Amino acid sequence: MANSSSKADAPRKDGRLPTQLREVRITPHYTEWAEGSALIEVGKTRVLCNATVDEKLPPFRVGKGLGWLTAEYSMLPRATHTRTPREAVAGKIGGRTHEIQRLIGRSLRSVVDMVKLGERQILIDCDVLQADGGTRTAAITGGYVALALACKSLQQKKMLTRWPLISPLAAISVGMVGGRHVLDLNYEEDSRAAVDFNVVMLGTGELVEVQGTAEGNPFNREDLNALLDLAEKGLKELFAIQEELLNKA
Amino acid sequence: MANSSSKADAPRKDGRLPTQLREVRITPHYTEWAEGSALIEVGKTRVLCNATVDEKLPPFRVGKGLGWLTAEYSMLPRATHTRTPREAVAGKIGGRTHEIQRLIGRSLRSVVDMVKLGERQILIDCDVLQADGGTRTAAITGGYVALALACKSLQQKKMLTRWPLISPLAAISVGMVGGRHVLDLNYEEDSRAAVDFNVVMLGTGELVEVQGTAEGNPFNREDLNALLDLAEKGLKELFAIQEELLNKA
Amino acid sequence: MANSSSKADAPRKDGRLPTQLREVRITPHYTEWAEGSALIEVGKTRVLCNATVDEKLPPFRVGKGLGWLTAEYSMLPRATHTRTPREAVAGKIGGRTHEIQRLIGRSLRSVVDMVKLGERQILIDCDVLQADGGTRTAAITGGYVALALACKSLQQKKMLTRWPLISPLAAISVGMVGGRHVLDLNYEEDSRAAVDFNVVMLGTGELVEVQGTAEGNPFNREDLNALLDLAEKGLKELFAIQEELLNKA
Amino acid sequence: MANSSSKADAPRKDGRLPTQLREVRITPHYTEWAEGSALIEVGKTRVLCNATVDEKLPPFRVGKGLGWLTAEYSMLPRATHTRTPREAVAGKIGGRTHEIQRLIGRSLRSVVDMVKLGERQILIDCDVLQADGGTRTAAITGGYVALALACKSLQQKKMLTRWPLISPLAAISVGMVGGRHVLDLNYEEDSRAAVDFNVVMLGTGELVEVQGTAEGNPFNREDLNALLDLAEKGLKELFAIQEELLNKA
Amino acid sequence: MANSSSKADAPRKDGRLPTQLREVRITPHYTEWAEGSALIEVGKTRVLCNATVDEKLPPFRVGKGLGWLTAEYSMLPRATHTRTPREAVAGKIGGRTHEIQRLIGRSLRSVVDMVKLGERQILIDCDVLQADGGTRTAAITGGYVALALACKSLQQKKMLTRWPLISPLAAISVGMVGGRHVLDLNYEEDSRAAVDFNVVMLGTGELVEVQGTAEGNPFNREDLNALLDLAEKGLKELFAIQEELLNKA
Amino acid sequence: MANSSSKADAPRKDGRLPTQLREVRITPHYTEWAEGSALIEVGKTRVLCNATVDEKLPPFRVGKGLGWLTAEYSMLPRATHTRTPREAVAGKIGGRTHEIQRLIGRSLRSVVDMVKLGERQILIDCDVLQADGGTRTAAITGGYVALALACKSLQQKKMLTRWPLISPLAAISVGMVGGRHVLDLNYEEDSRAAVDFNVVMLGTGELVEVQGTAEGNPFNREDLNALLDLAEKGLKELFAIQEELLNKA
Repeated sequence: MANSSSKADAPRKDGRLPTQLREVRITPHYTEWAEGSALIEVGKTRVLCNATVDEKLPPFRVGKGLGWLTAEYSMLPRATHTRTPREAVAGKIGGRTHEIQRLIGRSLRSVVDMVKLGERQILIDCDVLQADGGTRTAAITGGYVALALACKSLQQKKMLTRWPLISPLAAISVGMVGGRHVLDLNYEEDSRAAVDFNVVMLGTGELVEVQGTAEGNPFNREDLNALLDLAEKGLKELFAIQEELLNKA
Repeated sequence: MANSSSKADAPRKDGRLPTQLREVRITPHYTEWAEGSALIEVGKTRVLCNATVDEKLPPFRVGKGLGWLTAEYSMLPRATHTRTPREAVAGKIGGRTHEIQRLIGRSLRSVVDMVKLGERQILIDCDVLQADGGTRTAAITGGYVALALACKSLQQKKMLTRWPLISPLAAISVGMVGGRHVLDLNYEEDSRAAVDFNVVMLGTGELVEVQGTAEGNPFNREDLNALLDLAEKGLKELFAIQEELLNKA
Repeated sequence: MANSSSKADAPRKDGRLPTQLREVRITPHYTEWAEGSALIEVGKTRVLCNATVDEKLPPFRVGKGLGWLTAEYSMLPRATHTRTPREAVAGKIGGRTHEIQRLIGRSLRSVVDMVKLGERQILIDCDVLQADGGTRTAAITGGYVALALACKSLQQKKMLTRWPLISPLAAISVGMVGGRHVLDLNYEEDSRAAVDFNVVMLGTGELVEVQGTAEGNPFNREDLNALLDLAEKGLKELFAIQEELLNKA
Repeated sequence: MANSSSKADAPRKDGRLPTQLREVRITPHYTEWAEGSALIEVGKTRVLCNATVDEKLPPFRVGKGLGWLTAEYSMLPRATHTRTPREAVAGKIGGRTHEIQRLIGRSLRSVVDMVKLGERQILIDCDVLQADGGTRTAAITGGYVALALACKSLQQKKMLTRWPLISPLAAISVGMVGGRHVLDLNYEEDSRAAVDFNVVMLGTGELVEVQGTAEGNPFNREDLNALLDLAEKGLKELFAIQEELLNKA
Repeated sequence: MANSSSKADAPRKDGRLPTQLREVRITPHYTEWAEGSALIEVGKTRVLCNATVDEKLPPFRVGKGLGWLTAEYSMLPRATHTRTPREAVAGKIGGRTHEIQRLIGRSLRSVVDMVKLGERQILIDCDVLQADGGTRTAAITGGYVALALACKSLQQKKMLTRWPLISPLAAISVGMVGGRHVLDLNYEEDSRAAVDFNVVMLGTGELVEVQGTAEGNPFNREDLNALLDLAEKGLKELFAIQEELLNKA
Repeated sequence: MANSSSKADAPRKDGRLPTQLREVRITPHYTEWAEGSALIEVGKTRVLCNATVDEKLPPFRVGKGLGWLTAEYSMLPRATHTRTPREAVAGKIGGRTHEIQRLIGRSLRSVVDMVKLGERQILIDCDVLQADGGTRTAAITGGYVALALACKSLQQKKMLTRWPLISPLAAISVGMVGGRHVLDLNYEEDSRAAVDFNVVMLGTGELVEVQGTAEGNPFNREDLNALLDLAEKGLKELFAIQEELLNKA
């Protein structure tokens, strides 16, 4: 589908190579009250991820000897170029928000051993302070850090007997923009993309979520494989950043 | 990941082969008032798809010389084994519904030439009368039929000068159940599946949506490719059923 | 008030005599999961009635040795000639829906011996698949069948010691259209009716609900009596249909 | 059905004869800002009815040369023996309120000549300050007075060329309590009633609404006729009170 | 700031002196079902205050040996010159209502000894029947009377061992209108006021709430002191009215 | 009321003198898309203030040659010690939020010359990232900076002919804690305070808002004056910080 050969290595509008991530910074313990907290910045995208440990399970989960994890996602009104009205003012949560927070929760649950977590709930709040594309994948990558810090804090308080996280977890977007495959789309690229994939991977290289959507043109199996290769490359870099940070923290 | 060799051809609980679809029936013109209407039955799953032609566009789309398509999805309370409370009573639409109706709308928009459709909107209502797994993919497959019938009706009234549909469209689920790859999961299989994919394809064989989720265990690239092969096989059968039906209608 | 003499026996627009019902078909067990289910068709009006047995009572009813029954009513968006927006999207249930579901619930409760039903609740969901006038009365007539089938199912599971239904129940509309009294108004007649009555009756001939409204002109006591006579005639035919069906089922 | 002979004339718990209304007082101009205002007291039931003239029609009614009338009904939290939570706090209007305000609006519209009213809307607000049974019928009887006063005010401002009200309008409840037919039920009687009718009548004696419900036992046609006779008696007394008041005002 | 000297004693538009209250009438026991009830009229402003004793505490207050008091405030639609839509119809309570009912609740709680009240809740409903400025302060002054009457009623039923009210409580508005300090602003004055203060005081002369807002021009410390002096004068008159009334009741 | 003499100069729990502010930092241009942006930190309290310029006025303000300003306030769920549920999830904005955002909007409007601003609206979003008392006063002080930066940006784009801000504006809390008057209460002090004042002042020393509440004990006029003196001292320090920052920006 995509003619990705001729200009495949020409720099993008923001100067990056097609296979290059934006600069990623993760600030652990950004807020003081949350059990786990991380501010993740991917280029201009900034997402504050806070993990809350709640010793009370939601009703449907009580009495099974298992823990639970859920996530909420929201954008501040001026995270976006033009102001987005608050969902609290509208009185309801929109479809896009629902879709994103279900993805974040599902992805993070895939690395939690619910028996080892024990009968408690972890809530991951992902609040976008500034948006420039890739907020949902940044929320997963940063949310994992907040989750790991919350588990460390439980461990230090001797509230966990065994480490409940099965594997590191990170997410990235890839897509077809202007006829070639690119890694980590910013907002401007995302709005021009013909195809957009969000890929969530374990530290082991196994996949937990692949969501590919043809926004403009359909895609074929070759495109799909090339995009997944590209995502894998970016995800390995994210795992390295997470690991270094968590070793220090 | 999956050991899909040894028992790959043993029948499933409902007697089907791993690569076999459930019986599919599509009843065109199920309701009388809608511009396009189809009842799709995939095994025990029954979804009523009605297409409404609205000569008024939503505000964000006015004055661009382009049409629009959107979809809504809902389940009757007793579509499910135990009764599900109405979203109208809760006063809000849940996250699952949002996610599904966004998928249906996005998929169907991918086959509409919005210039040829002209400045009007088509709404696809997908109401699940009985649910037994695969309701979202049935809604897409049946929704395409309702959409095509509505376009025929516009054509007959001389309200369209050119056929606005780019390609047929269908969707199917595939997944890993009990360690093997299976096609068209019913509810019982879906609830046991380690991995669940929804695949939306054009009649040309190109993909418009791939959503793969590890509900239980993560998956690797080989699984992904095997599952997509299986989906393609089922989708070709669905395209044949649609084509025969629409040729007659 | 009405000059019902001269043209009293001339056929109506749809060919029926003034005293004639539309064709009535009731399909028992239309859905598989509900404890009781019936699809009722009265001409083009189609209402799916599903009865759910819930062993849990609503809070206000607990601990009295009595059962409860309640009903919900809804129309699919394209049940109507022009699409009606979903109440779930509006985020609230409209006045007409409230009025109708209160009527259905009240009527069906009048034939239930709550002591014999025991401490459980029956919910009757009435979903209009296609509307052509008389949806609320069809919902009552079909809802009774779903209720009776649910009670049979409870009886077969030995969960009832005594039959909890006091009498059959059915409902019909009558009205004054074009100056004469007519039975079972379709949508076109309903929208022209000067007076519209909904009558709910027991198999014994006693009344449980009479709702007469002058939409156009007021009515007098003679009109009222003539309309109730006409309703009685139609209701006897409905009781015969119900009885035959339930004897077979 | 009812053995209404032997003790038919014995006084009721509150000392009234079966055929006797409670004391009725109507205070015109109870509030100063509304275009028409009346406080109606029927025994301990007190309903404040305010009519607002709005020169702007609701969208569905614009440009037809016709006016419109609608009504809203609400109870103050301590109108009732035990406090009823506010609907504004619940965030939605309950089924009972919907049913009542639809009845009030429909009834009052039946006496308005919409051509003569002209392209404006009248809103009737009925707020129950204290409830002791019969609040919906008191709201109709008092609402008519507020409506007539608002029309007088329009006439005095030369905003009407012809009187737009077709006939006086009043409403009353009748029912079967303790085996006999009684007029104008108070709360205590209403909660014991086997059958409960609300009857809305024109000054001409013609009916615009008859709503009869078997709360306890079903009723027959003789009961129905006896109850309507009783209602007519009470309604004539209400018309006399309205007339005297409006002649003075 | 204000040139309050020259014309300081000229009468206001409604004939009052700058330091003069409007006529105040308080009708105790206005409604029959509430445990405490008072209709307060301050000029044309009329607020119905009903106190409900609820032996059940809200969840956050249970098991502490302490009582609770909360307040709700609402305006009837035609309390105002032009009709204000109902908050129940809007489906949510507006910011102004929230602000006012929080003030009323906080003020009334300041005179309740929660230990002596015991583990029960008092709800004060303040419903504005007619508004002409000063509705929130009238609600506090009248709410105190309803509260005291409810406590008397508890005392008479021997449900209180000690009198739970610490002090009388009243509230009044003062402001700067047309360059001078005035007491008890009506609606017309309020809408012209440069500065508006609501002052809530105990019978002891101590303050529990001072809310001063510059609607038009800022104010200085001298203005603030002059306005508080004026408020104190008016509040003493209100305490005398309350005292006389409660001694009689 | 307060014995503020003996221990008046002993340090507070966090080491500050009674008359000492917490450390205040304001980061201008914290976000990139907003027309004006400032992150204000007062001790551990952190509020992100973003100003949006909207060339479209709200309907009630159109066509008057005047601008408008409004504010919204919200807390991230983990801004607080224990997690506070999102208002978007609850589906409605709580009373406390309403009260605070009305205060912020009113205060900021008091320094805007609406004629000079012209027919456009400025929205000030105040989002609390971390809360430790004084969030509403920090929002006003930081909101003024965001507002001034947005006006500078309009000026640079030649969209303003005259500077529309009348005066600097800042806010601070003061209160009575443990029997003495203290400046700038943190959360722990706020929860113990007997009296709590929020004071909003212009750079000229004039007041625009004084909100004093006796949370525990009532206060007298001497306390009020001492607290206002203390607030003035703190506010002068805040004006110096704002001025230095805005001169640089």
